[in-house]
Amino acid sequence: MKIWQKATDSKKEVEQFTIGRDPEFDLILAPFDVLGSMAHAAMLSEIGLLTDEENQTLQKGLKEIYFEIEKGQFQIASGVEDVHSQVEFLLTERYGEVGKKLHSGRSRNDQVLVDLKLYYRAAIREIMEETQVLFDLLSQLAEKHQHDLMPGYTHTQLAMPSSFGLWFSSFAEGLTEDLGLLKAAFDLSNKNPLGSAAGYGSSFPLNRTLTTELLGFADLHHNVINAQNSRGKTERTIAFALAGIAGTLNKLATDVCLFMNQHFAFISFPDELTTGSSIMPHKKNPDVFELIRAKTNQIQAVPTSVGFLLTNMSTGYHRDMQLLKEEIFPAFETLKACLSMNTFMLKEIRVKQDILQNPFYKHLFSVEVVNDLVLQGVPFRDAYKKVGLDIEADQFTPDQSQVNHSHEGSIGNLCMDQIKVKMTAQLTQFKFEKIDQAFAKLLK
Amino acid sequence: MKIWQKATDSKKEVEQFTIGRDPEFDLILAPFDVLGSMAHAAMLSEIGLLTDEENQTLQKGLKEIYFEIEKGQFQIASGVEDVHSQVEFLLTERYGEVGKKLHSGRSRNDQVLVDLKLYYRAAIREIMEETQVLFDLLSQLAEKHQHDLMPGYTHTQLAMPSSFGLWFSSFAEGLTEDLGLLKAAFDLSNKNPLGSAAGYGSSFPLNRTLTTELLGFADLHHNVINAQNSRGKTERTIAFALAGIAGTLNKLATDVCLFMNQHFAFISFPDELTTGSSIMPHKKNPDVFELIRAKTNQIQAVPTSVGFLLTNMSTGYHRDMQLLKEEIFPAFETLKACLSMNTFMLKEIRVKQDILQNPFYKHLFSVEVVNDLVLQGVPFRDAYKKVGLDIEADQFTPDQSQVNHSHEGSIGNLCMDQIKVKMTAQLTQFKFEKIDQAFAKLLK
Amino acid sequence: MKIWQKATDSKKEVEQFTIGRDPEFDLILAPFDVLGSMAHAAMLSEIGLLTDEENQTLQKGLKEIYFEIEKGQFQIASGVEDVHSQVEFLLTERYGEVGKKLHSGRSRNDQVLVDLKLYYRAAIREIMEETQVLFDLLSQLAEKHQHDLMPGYTHTQLAMPSSFGLWFSSFAEGLTEDLGLLKAAFDLSNKNPLGSAAGYGSSFPLNRTLTTELLGFADLHHNVINAQNSRGKTERTIAFALAGIAGTLNKLATDVCLFMNQHFAFISFPDELTTGSSIMPHKKNPDVFELIRAKTNQIQAVPTSVGFLLTNMSTGYHRDMQLLKEEIFPAFETLKACLSMNTFMLKEIRVKQDILQNPFYKHLFSVEVVNDLVLQGVPFRDAYKKVGLDIEADQFTPDQSQVNHSHEGSIGNLCMDQIKVKMTAQLTQFKFEKIDQAFAKLLK
Amino acid sequence: MKIWQKATDSKKEVEQFTIGRDPEFDLILAPFDVLGSMAHAAMLSEIGLLTDEENQTLQKGLKEIYFEIEKGQFQIASGVEDVHSQVEFLLTERYGEVGKKLHSGRSRNDQVLVDLKLYYRAAIREIMEETQVLFDLLSQLAEKHQHDLMPGYTHTQLAMPSSFGLWFSSFAEGLTEDLGLLKAAFDLSNKNPLGSAAGYGSSFPLNRTLTTELLGFADLHHNVINAQNSRGKTERTIAFALAGIAGTLNKLATDVCLFMNQHFAFISFPDELTTGSSIMPHKKNPDVFELIRAKTNQIQAVPTSVGFLLTNMSTGYHRDMQLLKEEIFPAFETLKACLSMNTFMLKEIRVKQDILQNPFYKHLFSVEVVNDLVLQGVPFRDAYKKVGLDIEADQFTPDQSQVNHSHEGSIGNLCMDQIKVKMTAQLTQFKFEKIDQAFAKLLK
Repeated sequence: MKIWQKATDSKKEVEQFTIGRDPEFDLILAPFDVLGSMAHAAMLSEIGLLTDEENQTLQKGLKEIYFEIEKGQFQIASGVEDVHSQVEFLLTERYGEVGKKLHSGRSRNDQVLVDLKLYYRAAIREIMEETQVLFDLLSQLAEKHQHDLMPGYTHTQLAMPSSFGLWFSSFAEGLTEDLGLLKAAFDLSNKNPLGSAAGYGSSFPLNRTLTTELLGFADLHHNVINAQNSRGKTERTIAFALAGIAGTLNKLATDVCLFMNQHFAFISFPDELTTGSSIMPHKKNPDVFELIRAKTNQIQAVPTSVGFLLTNMSTGYHRDMQLLKEEIFPAFETLKACLSMNTFMLKEIRVKQDILQNPFYKHLFSVEVVNDLVLQGVPFRDAYKKVGLDIEADQFTPDQSQVNHSHEGSIGNLCMDQIKVKMTAQLTQFKFEKIDQAFAKLLK
Repeated sequence: MKIWQKATDSKKEVEQFTIGRDPEFDLILAPFDVLGSMAHAAMLSEIGLLTDEENQTLQKGLKEIYFEIEKGQFQIASGVEDVHSQVEFLLTERYGEVGKKLHSGRSRNDQVLVDLKLYYRAAIREIMEETQVLFDLLSQLAEKHQHDLMPGYTHTQLAMPSSFGLWFSSFAEGLTEDLGLLKAAFDLSNKNPLGSAAGYGSSFPLNRTLTTELLGFADLHHNVINAQNSRGKTERTIAFALAGIAGTLNKLATDVCLFMNQHFAFISFPDELTTGSSIMPHKKNPDVFELIRAKTNQIQAVPTSVGFLLTNMSTGYHRDMQLLKEEIFPAFETLKACLSMNTFMLKEIRVKQDILQNPFYKHLFSVEVVNDLVLQGVPFRDAYKKVGLDIEADQFTPDQSQVNHSHEGSIGNLCMDQIKVKMTAQLTQFKFEKIDQAFAKLLK
Repeated sequence: MKIWQKATDSKKEVEQFTIGRDPEFDLILAPFDVLGSMAHAAMLSEIGLLTDEENQTLQKGLKEIYFEIEKGQFQIASGVEDVHSQVEFLLTERYGEVGKKLHSGRSRNDQVLVDLKLYYRAAIREIMEETQVLFDLLSQLAEKHQHDLMPGYTHTQLAMPSSFGLWFSSFAEGLTEDLGLLKAAFDLSNKNPLGSAAGYGSSFPLNRTLTTELLGFADLHHNVINAQNSRGKTERTIAFALAGIAGTLNKLATDVCLFMNQHFAFISFPDELTTGSSIMPHKKNPDVFELIRAKTNQIQAVPTSVGFLLTNMSTGYHRDMQLLKEEIFPAFETLKACLSMNTFMLKEIRVKQDILQNPFYKHLFSVEVVNDLVLQGVPFRDAYKKVGLDIEADQFTPDQSQVNHSHEGSIGNLCMDQIKVKMTAQLTQFKFEKIDQAFAKLLK
Repeated sequence: MKIWQKATDSKKEVEQFTIGRDPEFDLILAPFDVLGSMAHAAMLSEIGLLTDEENQTLQKGLKEIYFEIEKGQFQIASGVEDVHSQVEFLLTERYGEVGKKLHSGRSRNDQVLVDLKLYYRAAIREIMEETQVLFDLLSQLAEKHQHDLMPGYTHTQLAMPSSFGLWFSSFAEGLTEDLGLLKAAFDLSNKNPLGSAAGYGSSFPLNRTLTTELLGFADLHHNVINAQNSRGKTERTIAFALAGIAGTLNKLATDVCLFMNQHFAFISFPDELTTGSSIMPHKKNPDVFELIRAKTNQIQAVPTSVGFLLTNMSTGYHRDMQLLKEEIFPAFETLKACLSMNTFMLKEIRVKQDILQNPFYKHLFSVEVVNDLVLQGVPFRDAYKKVGLDIEADQFTPDQSQVNHSHEGSIGNLCMDQIKVKMTAQLTQFKFEKIDQAFAKLLK
């Protein structure tokens, strides 16, 4: 039985087609739905639409449900349409008529919106935390392997000396830069849509500033149409943010798969982290990194799916938006898994030593030698010519054991401290503690 | 325990991350895996790698498993890696060592490839059949409503008279044209990859023409690298084909949602097929068509996901390809559901009568009147001017009850027969009966 | 003649294929290339690789070229490979050998990177400024039309009363929210890559902090590989940012095209801003907004093109990255044009008065009436029932002239002041004045 | 001055924004526009709307213009809106009033549609021809290098022996398979839309079958709405077809860039076809193939741009469709260039000899040796064990000079004849000669 239901029953084919994966997603949203209702009830009481007593009953009942959800004791009963109905049904069953007063001054539209925003904030936080763990590992690896040289490539051609320190820390710094997009996604998720009703506001004198504070939002979508249009915009921005991090992980995985190839053989992993072949006993396949590469590609395609769902659509809610959940919810999970598997694997990475001492790599040092001559006072043109002639005459025998790069961000000067400062600066912008405090207060 | 497994055990984190949704997809592939094995065993026997007796045992054992799958009695035992291992395990358990001989001369790569091709052929056929059912309904609706006029729009502006007959049959003909892409996808799926092993062939004297015939394939991928590279190309082409049909259904759904808007109010559906609102009693929302619009958008984004998984990848199998299943398998299901829900809904569509007789629409007839004058001998320029002046003087009162369009494909001459011929021509190209015959022979 | 050229000449077919649209883009980059070189020369002088005198000569020569570019007097001579070579050629022609010393300690890779970053900063600023102009107009329109009611839709169905004030200001607030992505793109563009050479640093003791300051960058990409990998990441982030704004404009354009349809007829534009038809004299087509809709769709597809260019690519420069310019440069221009055409058109928009007083719209007010009864003390359930019965009995005659919405962001309380504060807060984050000061100092 | 223009002039800002790149594209469409008009005039004469004399005058005038276009003597005069107006203007200037009669019974919508279809047919033919040239070269290279062994990879790991013959011919066969999509695109382009007017037909008794024949179309879009909706569907299908071929070329280019890397060093090109570095004298960069890889990525993104332009759009022409030209026209040119540059480069490819004789590659032969033992009667299990032990004891010394693969499509049996038959079969389906004959008749 649905809240909006009149006499006629919608056919079961329609129901089955329209419900999609919502039952699965509704369980994820359940705790946030309850928190949203607690704030809404408190606000209704403040503006006189609920008595103090009614509010206290609702707060008590909602808190009970919240902790049932936490304990895994909550489910949506068969025949109940969605999480919102289930919560209202439980309240009414347990505390009577007051349960039915909870929906005053809101629509399912803004109720779902607030659930989603609260979930997105929490999911972004998890991404943030996994990113930080990976960042820390990459930083450690960079420091550990600062002096392990490896070739640097341009055009997939041997170019100049590089180092594992440089390589690991490039991804560490890269991750700090991806957090700019994540912050943009967080900011959009951190705006209160409650009170926008079906997208055109309400004739009740709602206090939207109050629910904003109670739920720990940094701000509200003031305009009620814009609050509704933020459904879609928020998901698009999240999709961009996840795709940004995915892009960085994709490059790391691509490098790993290449460097594990036997021609390179720069890195390896313990046998139990690689995969064999049904017919080729010598194979050690980098399946985990191939799948990270592939999964980060799927995530990079999410903005396209989201874009197709949204484009050329007029203002106001359309049922199409339901499917945004199918795009975004799994993308969060996939990216989290990719981040944590990166950490899991890279903990065990083994780096080949002394790669560049092989004469195979001597041409990598040509620029070094030219520059050294220049620093010794030889004009660049003469230095370049001399090295060129030496190479041609096969008399080019540079010192391949080290490179003298000292400027900021170079092999000899990784600037890990400065890079760590960037990560910390990004992290502190999120102000998660404000959310923790608000939720603690609601649930105290 | 895995076939390729040596002493060391891969960690459970690796296993969980890499297995993904394969257990679910493997059950879909199971019957095709068995059919592929039947053909492979028969071929091995023909080239002397199995005795007649061994082959007969395998055929018997595989047939048993096939019918167990059909009856829903098949499952992949816990700890068994995949469907291929489960089938081999059952054969060996039931018939001894002969079960282990089945894998000679093939790799899991070409085994999966052949499973996928057989599944794709079957799934494309289902899409074909659902398309045909919808086509038939659209044709009937076109004939039934041939003379029910409605406005035609350009730039979303009222333009000229149209009709429901024209509108319905435009989608009927549109669907016939989408089948060109579906045929291209079918042709790629209808090529035998078996015998390509891991993508570089085998030193066994395999008879690939024989397995091609036994499995009812129209052709084989001759080149073994190309057979392996067809993984990816086949999925990309299928993604295009599904996106093509999705594009047509998306336009139909967009039209329906617009025409159900109260300003237009051209069509309606019984209450039990629409959805109400929790706060607005007057709403009859077109949720089913909104979700068709949305789901066809998701399908239109599949080529991008597939493209990201494949691009910039060198020749040869990469584990990334496993995730193609996550893109394509659900896309088939979603498109089938969209096709059948279209049929389900359109059976009940109600079309408003006499729309164009409302004076609101009289300007639609201006071109009609000009053309009529021209056909009566008035020079175009004079006719155009006269009608323009009439309109300006508010003295333009055309006959709004009918239009006299008689050319091919116009309101008065829908050419449904010719359009049906196109559908039949497309259908007969697929030659599904050849597949039926091959499978019947294998399973006899 | 190319800098890297040895004896053999690359074939003209190769040259033509590889040069692409670079000559066109190089002219856009020219002023930034000169500024980058001024900073680089000053730094080389500071670390002793140029004498003071050499540096002063180069500063003078580069400043001359800068002002020639500003006056449109600069072009890339036939046979000269690119803007970098042309600048070096001019310097050498005019001031002799010193021109050739400018390239010490940098590669074309970091030279192009710094040119691009400087251009992106400037282009983002232009987007910012056009966005602000449109925001101001939308705010004015919202205030002017605050009390002009219109219908609000959900599911493209009539839902509840809305207003033009609400509608205009929804896009105003929406634009402020899009600037979060633009800021993320700006931050990435505002990091100095100079000194990363070909992506693996240099053995010269470059002072990267100094060039960072001289060019007004907020920070540097410390890690030199990461600096190189920022080519691609920066463009992807810009693509996201432009797509975000494009998404908002796309919805606005979609609404305009719908509301200009004769069934709605809520808004109109002067004849000279619409387009007619070759055969239908009554048409006033919204071509400009259709093209804004279409162009914003093209921009929304840019992340996909950029993603394809970048994904599955290993660390280090690849020539593929050249084509990022073909994606990003036109996207900036297109979005700027869409923003300014919106402003141009909306200045002339005419809004229909008293739309909702038509009885056609009376059901929109059902929720209003229910809520009013609730606020008067009638239990919600009874109120809802009464209104439902009135509607059924055709006795529902609400006051359609106004709505009493008073909460934050509702029809009666648009919160334009708060929304303007958001815009200002976004703007001040960009700190463009720091860039102006740096450039003024370089060019003084 | 525009045909549809009334008193008021559209502002120049509007004009500039809406015209876009049409002047450039109109010159490409010009010859097809004239041919379409010749067929239309002949048909108008046949149904009595033009006299024989008028028709003959128009045929003569149009033929003149056609040959002027061929000689490069045609241009669109300043102030004339588009190619259609220019042709009509020239006819009227030269032959008087009869020029103005040409537009009877058609709209600019179906006129543009027919121009586009004719252009697409011609452009597809060019793609077809370039594909065939590349196919022939790949076939020759496969035959020439049939016995030059190279490693085959799976998971980017050394797997089994392969050969250059296998590698070249995999792309040859791959191209034949891409032509299925191209045929689907051709079929859609080869349907006559003329007579659909603005998408809702005409009250003139047009003979659409006649124009279908005169223009060499294989069929017509019968339904006039469907004819209009084919704008978009045709472009989407073309985008898919070009993306399909692009996918094959992308893999080839990816392989080439990898195999040119110094660790592989399997292939090389003459110096004048590669590119050097401004600071690294030893570099020979594969810029052409990097750009082919990148350009084929851009082409693979075209379906997304096209999809965004089309999705969620209702039936009927929208101005948005104009921008489809910006997506499709350059994609044809880019793909043609990629095909012909592949041919240009691969003509000069140099293949390393005797790669696999290096002991580095001996493990590639493990499966060979196991299979050989099996064919000699050793049970697979024993054979596998023996080889495994040999490898472990470092006593595995296979014959690395050749492999004995004899089945269809393997190293020893490339089946080039069968693959060539596939190419021929695809080619003959297109029936270009029918088009040639029709055009020859029109222009005789």
